[in-house]
Amino acid sequence: MINFDFYSPARILFGKGMESQIGELLKPLAKKVLLHYGGGSIKKSGLYDTVTASLKGSGVAFVELGGVKPNPRLSLVHEGIDLCKKEGVDLVLAVGGGSSIDSAKAIAMGVYFDGDVWAVYDEGAPIEKALPVATILTIPAAGSESSGDTVISNEATGRKYGYGNPLLRPVLSIINPELFFTLPKEQLGFGVADMMSHVFERYITNTEHTDLTDGLCEVTLKTLMKNALLACKDIRDYDAWAELGFGGTVAHNGLVGMGREQDWACHGMEHELSAIYDVAHGAGLAVLTPGWMQYVYKDNVNMFVQFAINVMGVESSFRDPDAIVQEGIARLREFFAKIGLPSTLSDLGIGEDRLEEMAKKATGAAFGEEEPIGGLKPLYWQDVLAIYKLVK
Amino acid sequence: MINFDFYSPARILFGKGMESQIGELLKPLAKKVLLHYGGGSIKKSGLYDTVTASLKGSGVAFVELGGVKPNPRLSLVHEGIDLCKKEGVDLVLAVGGGSSIDSAKAIAMGVYFDGDVWAVYDEGAPIEKALPVATILTIPAAGSESSGDTVISNEATGRKYGYGNPLLRPVLSIINPELFFTLPKEQLGFGVADMMSHVFERYITNTEHTDLTDGLCEVTLKTLMKNALLACKDIRDYDAWAELGFGGTVAHNGLVGMGREQDWACHGMEHELSAIYDVAHGAGLAVLTPGWMQYVYKDNVNMFVQFAINVMGVESSFRDPDAIVQEGIARLREFFAKIGLPSTLSDLGIGEDRLEEMAKKATGAAFGEEEPIGGLKPLYWQDVLAIYKLVK
Repeated sequence: MINFDFYSPARILFGKGMESQIGELLKPLAKKVLLHYGGGSIKKSGLYDTVTASLKGSGVAFVELGGVKPNPRLSLVHEGIDLCKKEGVDLVLAVGGGSSIDSAKAIAMGVYFDGDVWAVYDEGAPIEKALPVATILTIPAAGSESSGDTVISNEATGRKYGYGNPLLRPVLSIINPELFFTLPKEQLGFGVADMMSHVFERYITNTEHTDLTDGLCEVTLKTLMKNALLACKDIRDYDAWAELGFGGTVAHNGLVGMGREQDWACHGMEHELSAIYDVAHGAGLAVLTPGWMQYVYKDNVNMFVQFAINVMGVESSFRDPDAIVQEGIARLREFFAKIGLPSTLSDLGIGEDRLEEMAKKATGAAFGEEEPIGGLKPLYWQDVLAIYKLVK
Repeated sequence: MINFDFYSPARILFGKGMESQIGELLKPLAKKVLLHYGGGSIKKSGLYDTVTASLKGSGVAFVELGGVKPNPRLSLVHEGIDLCKKEGVDLVLAVGGGSSIDSAKAIAMGVYFDGDVWAVYDEGAPIEKALPVATILTIPAAGSESSGDTVISNEATGRKYGYGNPLLRPVLSIINPELFFTLPKEQLGFGVADMMSHVFERYITNTEHTDLTDGLCEVTLKTLMKNALLACKDIRDYDAWAELGFGGTVAHNGLVGMGREQDWACHGMEHELSAIYDVAHGAGLAVLTPGWMQYVYKDNVNMFVQFAINVMGVESSFRDPDAIVQEGIARLREFFAKIGLPSTLSDLGIGEDRLEEMAKKATGAAFGEEEPIGGLKPLYWQDVLAIYKLVK
């Protein structure tokens, strides 16, 4: 176990009907909030009415900005920043999935940032302060409701970058599994792949002596897989969605990765797919993760044997580690297929013509500043290209 | 899963050498701190010198109050409150185990409490404010380094009461497994029994559909058991202590109990033993827990079958649930014995003469206000007496 600093202060209010308390919860925190959301789904479902009625009932003023798209755009962030400044907003309330929440975080820090907030993502420009962010989660996936992370796409440059800072952790997040009943089935799959990836990025490590977090990772992965299949069968299965909603938060609030060297290569490789082809993040991860495992596992066979046996339930004589790992990866692919996820870049409509470009962007080689990605095995652009080709 | 509110903002700084940063960490939080600790062990080990040098080096002033005893006393709390008021202290730094930390929390709220702070424990008198508390942990056991709970004994009345409030959560806690190398072996056992009990109190439940937290509880219990045996073999095994130190925090920061009805009967029954006989809390829990399981398991056999199989590794044909549970309980007893813990009240030097008195105190019957204790099966004083007698 390596030294660590764990700080996860997001308050999680979990369960049926919690969203109707939002006004009372925000009242001590803000006089005027920016209500930030995506398209019409929260209006169709009645959630918009519940939230605005609760805000009004508690005397919390609000202005609103909808229109967040998957892979949230910098241009809308700029619009939100201007609106917050003009209206004197003192808290951003995101109602939606990871895209709305990530966009809200960008707005929250942009209000205090001198210059274009893109510099924070692009150059790591330091931030001193951010508006508090609260969330009502409508898609369990990104884990953004409990993390300090945000990912934004700059549509002008075709770049998609992540940024993390404890200042961006939501002060409170409401997770009501009932709000997930109306999700399209493909969103379920995308979300599960994303949540599982948040665990994989922390789980697959060269760090030794990590009993507790090994177990926490394995339990979280198994819970997500079991309940994804249940929710696929019955999209109104409250108990299954409760495990997915809670699991997504545990997957990404930091705990399961404490004391471990982490990886994050799959996220880096996926961001290039989303930035250029605008594919769903979870779909990209489902394609890349098994390919990445295939490419890197020989660097730490025992870690992948543990994954195959403890997570994927491979039974084995233990005398052929390669066969165990292969079976583990095959079962992961089968699982992703069962919940409707794609398995190749071609399934995503991605051809071979820009693979090298993406590989070079993922490692920074395209900008003359290559740094290998990945904690388990450092990957250069040639490695990333090889992985893209493995799953083409 | 039932609705829940999870908020666990204690920052955990974990690993080798972390305690030497205490001055820099506290500098933004306090001008003057109360350094609160137990006996001479932190002076012998050099920890006292490290901490005071770090405080001085960072220009953080301090006053000190040592002398905390196991089952910390109200009289010392009163002394600490007076000292803080007189000296204008603005943060309490506990250096020690659960007793020092619990005592520090009592002082921290007592500074702002109008009247005797015992009223908070005894009558649930409301508190509005408390000084921030920081901790440097020297015994992994109570989980007080990440919880908002405190337990204090009133030596004048022989009562021992717990109290919990989010205001009492430490703002930061340092856990360095190296600091545990000098613990007497019996402290290791007491600590492990206490940490395991924090999980049991949450794990054993009638709530259904709790996949994720079932798994988190089981993994934490198994990690604690495995590494307790390793640390018993080699008291300087850093990796084993790291799992115990991290495990104790995860056991009690709230997460593993979210969405579940909790029990806490064993803690209630044990407090009476400690209050009257001043036995170590963990020792009392090790005696009571298997007896409690024996007494209540028929109310939810399946829960205890799950415990026996998933935690204690009982192999079985599944056709004789009682036999599985009995084997699970027997293995728990064996494990406690292996790490040097007592198995009967008589081992603790407790005779039969005051069992009824303690049973009546534990449920409030002694004060004419009986309320059954325990979430799985409500226990009245006759039940508590029966459990005491089962383990006499």
